[in-house]
Amino acid sequence: MGDVCVGIDVGGTTVKLGVFESSGQLLRKWEIPTRKEHGGSHILPDVAASVRRTLGEMKIALTDVCGAGLGVPGPVAADGYVPRCVNLGWGECHPARDLSLMLDGIPVKCANDANIAALGEMWQGGGKGHNDIVMVTLGTGVGGGVVVDQKIVAGKHGLAGEIGHTHVRDDETEYCNCGSRGCLEQVASATGIVHEAKVFLASDGRESVLRDIGDGMTAKDVIDAAKAGDELAVEVVECVCYYLGRALAQIALTVDPEIFVIGGGVSKAGQYLVDIIQKYYEEYERLSENRPLIGLAKLGNDAGIYGAARMVLD
Amino acid sequence: MGDVCVGIDVGGTTVKLGVFESSGQLLRKWEIPTRKEHGGSHILPDVAASVRRTLGEMKIALTDVCGAGLGVPGPVAADGYVPRCVNLGWGECHPARDLSLMLDGIPVKCANDANIAALGEMWQGGGKGHNDIVMVTLGTGVGGGVVVDQKIVAGKHGLAGEIGHTHVRDDETEYCNCGSRGCLEQVASATGIVHEAKVFLASDGRESVLRDIGDGMTAKDVIDAAKAGDELAVEVVECVCYYLGRALAQIALTVDPEIFVIGGGVSKAGQYLVDIIQKYYEEYERLSENRPLIGLAKLGNDAGIYGAARMVLD
Repeated sequence: MGDVCVGIDVGGTTVKLGVFESSGQLLRKWEIPTRKEHGGSHILPDVAASVRRTLGEMKIALTDVCGAGLGVPGPVAADGYVPRCVNLGWGECHPARDLSLMLDGIPVKCANDANIAALGEMWQGGGKGHNDIVMVTLGTGVGGGVVVDQKIVAGKHGLAGEIGHTHVRDDETEYCNCGSRGCLEQVASATGIVHEAKVFLASDGRESVLRDIGDGMTAKDVIDAAKAGDELAVEVVECVCYYLGRALAQIALTVDPEIFVIGGGVSKAGQYLVDIIQKYYEEYERLSENRPLIGLAKLGNDAGIYGAARMVLD
Repeated sequence: MGDVCVGIDVGGTTVKLGVFESSGQLLRKWEIPTRKEHGGSHILPDVAASVRRTLGEMKIALTDVCGAGLGVPGPVAADGYVPRCVNLGWGECHPARDLSLMLDGIPVKCANDANIAALGEMWQGGGKGHNDIVMVTLGTGVGGGVVVDQKIVAGKHGLAGEIGHTHVRDDETEYCNCGSRGCLEQVASATGIVHEAKVFLASDGRESVLRDIGDGMTAKDVIDAAKAGDELAVEVVECVCYYLGRALAQIALTVDPEIFVIGGGVSKAGQYLVDIIQKYYEEYERLSENRPLIGLAKLGNDAGIYGAARMVLD
């Protein structure tokens, strides 16, 4: 068994790939397009060919590779079985087994992309040095991943780490994509933050720099305005962080990780955001002075390839 | 290493003990008083003497015992370290190591009592046949335990499974023992159910059989009245189960177990209670048609000794 492993993160548009030393050192990373036509049947052959080509360029033999990890954007059972993956056009399949066959039988493991991102951040990112982390990704939606004792908690029905759909708001009047009302994602995703700002603007006559931005407003606009002291924007961010803090407290009272790692585009707001989340988190977790830390993700879009590679080191 | 293991569940008043075959068969169970005086210094020597005496009566040598598990009513770190245990009068200690020394060096493991109860229900109770369960105990308070892949998730700060302090109610005006407001325990514990019934009675002029019961009202009175069709009692039980269902949905969206097992005195209300919890649970977990089951605990007060014994079989 070799000292090199491959991490593959299959997204709806591109596949990210990386070759790593087992120490965690990234040796090479690259991308290929995700060809979703014909039921996504080209994806794994494209990946296999690209891995072979790159390893060839790097003068690494497949026999020197200890394995490849594969992240896919949808539910994956603990044994690697995928019931279906609408984002890739796949029906029922076992991509780990299939990819292994295409790569001379090297070990391949498969898991959900949000879960491997959490594992990646644990290995070489914001959770480095910890064995138990919960990652919360604030992007277009709100996703997450739970790692206990250096292992992904995949759950039995593809629901583990789906913290974007935790109920946080009783008086929410609109429905979430999931069919429920009052989900964390409705308020704390990039989309949710903008929506929240628009609701505040509509129900409130106050001056705000956000009024001039109009329809193209982004979550970054809202947070930047809050950082600059815009009163209405501050209230929006406080509201968003209140629900995030409460949700983290609920998660702490279930799995109690060493650290929460906040990632995704919204987390670029940095420590400013963490501090406000922390304030509300402490309000809703009063059992112990010792509580999980809250930190920022460090690997950005590479978290997936790191985590995928880390999977095959167990 | 023998085929017999010992389970010990140290409570504030009594210590429950059991001798088990490694198959899960309970061979003998008994109790001794918990002597809390002198900083609880008699507890472990009493336990050791009692284990020796009973094994002697059963003609089992300590060398035929594969180990003993110990549950204590307070936080226990993953390595068995106890920062303090106010319920037993203990300061900082390592009870597993101490008890092992008193029992000729047999392996001893120690964990929190709510967590071992969850493990016991997984092994031989309501979660039998499953590897991943979350137990929710509805007693004087609301406690819980999380088991992933047949192992207790202890958490890093003694918070894992403390689901009684999950925030569920925004408009709660009273404080919980933990210092927060709106905790699940405030509405779904036996005490909480009675409190809820009194609030309903005070704010509502309707007839109810609960009016005649007065100060001695119990959670069982409330649930029995609901089962008999008392309109106000039905509303109380619906309210309690609404918050329980929502809390279970939140937990499912974090760790996604195979089954939730409901235990504690309140769970004697049986399938009636489970059905109402299920109704609200499904409302707040809409991501998948496949979701964790909800079932009833089966081991009652013996769950702790089962789980303690199970710990040493790994």
